[in-house]
Amino acid sequence: MSDLQGVQVVPLRRLAAAGGWVLPVLRADAPHFRKFGEAYISAVAPGAVKAWVRHRLQTQNYAVVQGRLRLVLHDGRDGSPTRGLTRETALGEGSDSLVIVPPGIWSGFQCLSEREALLLNLATEPHDDHEQERRDPSDAAIGFNWAGLQP
Amino acid sequence: MSDLQGVQVVPLRRLAAAGGWVLPVLRADAPHFRKFGEAYISAVAPGAVKAWVRHRLQTQNYAVVQGRLRLVLHDGRDGSPTRGLTRETALGEGSDSLVIVPPGIWSGFQCLSEREALLLNLATEPHDDHEQERRDPSDAAIGFNWAGLQP
Repeated sequence: MSDLQGVQVVPLRRLAAAGGWVLPVLRADAPHFRKFGEAYISAVAPGAVKAWVRHRLQTQNYAVVQGRLRLVLHDGRDGSPTRGLTRETALGEGSDSLVIVPPGIWSGFQCLSEREALLLNLATEPHDDHEQERRDPSDAAIGFNWAGLQP
Repeated sequence: MSDLQGVQVVPLRRLAAAGGWVLPVLRADAPHFRKFGEAYISAVAPGAVKAWVRHRLQTQNYAVVQGRLRLVLHDGRDGSPTRGLTRETALGEGSDSLVIVPPGIWSGFQCLSEREALLLNLATEPHDDHEQERRDPSDAAIGFNWAGLQP
């Protein structure tokens, strides 16, 4: 999905530690760090879809900290050379990444694991209802088939 | 535990959302926000203890995003009016809080839930081995009995 203009995928590593593990997600001295606005966790129940959302100002920094989650991005930006493209990836244990999503790109999620998937977002701006836009998972302009999961 | 000098406990709220929930943890425009240095997740297996650690520079911003975790703090700061005091609290679903722990305070954790507890830390500085100090859970100078759980 890093062929969508401005989207970056940075591999992460879960480190074994006595009594558990540690997943470093983002450092302020990383070359891909921009700005900190808000941290939140979003839980997605097994099988559930959360879609679609896009932001006018916020850049998202997504990492899946538990379970597995399908992340789908759709470039709806006027003037973008990758406008109209849809890309997806599976995130979580076994394929940990930080996905950086610039403003104007639609994001959607589907839980792939039997347990609840937990998504950490480190957004560049604090949450503001007025700078985000939502659409239904079945939105025709985006035209994504959530039932069409690869086996 | 907010009677330890410099420790703050800020209540958090898990919000119901279609297909899951959302837990806002920290905003850059909050009065208690200081600085962003690094975000990581630490997983603690059922029954496991992770202790002790203290930092010379970092302030920790701890929130439990899954399961329940016992957080124990011990003030080991020379010159602190609360030096020598130990305080504990249970964090997680049902009692969500952000706990802000200044440098010099020892932190320890024990998982209280049947599933792995996941701790989010939004530290004010990127991780640096040289600014942290570790001790065993049974360290005599701290003198905490991890087996002494209240029923």
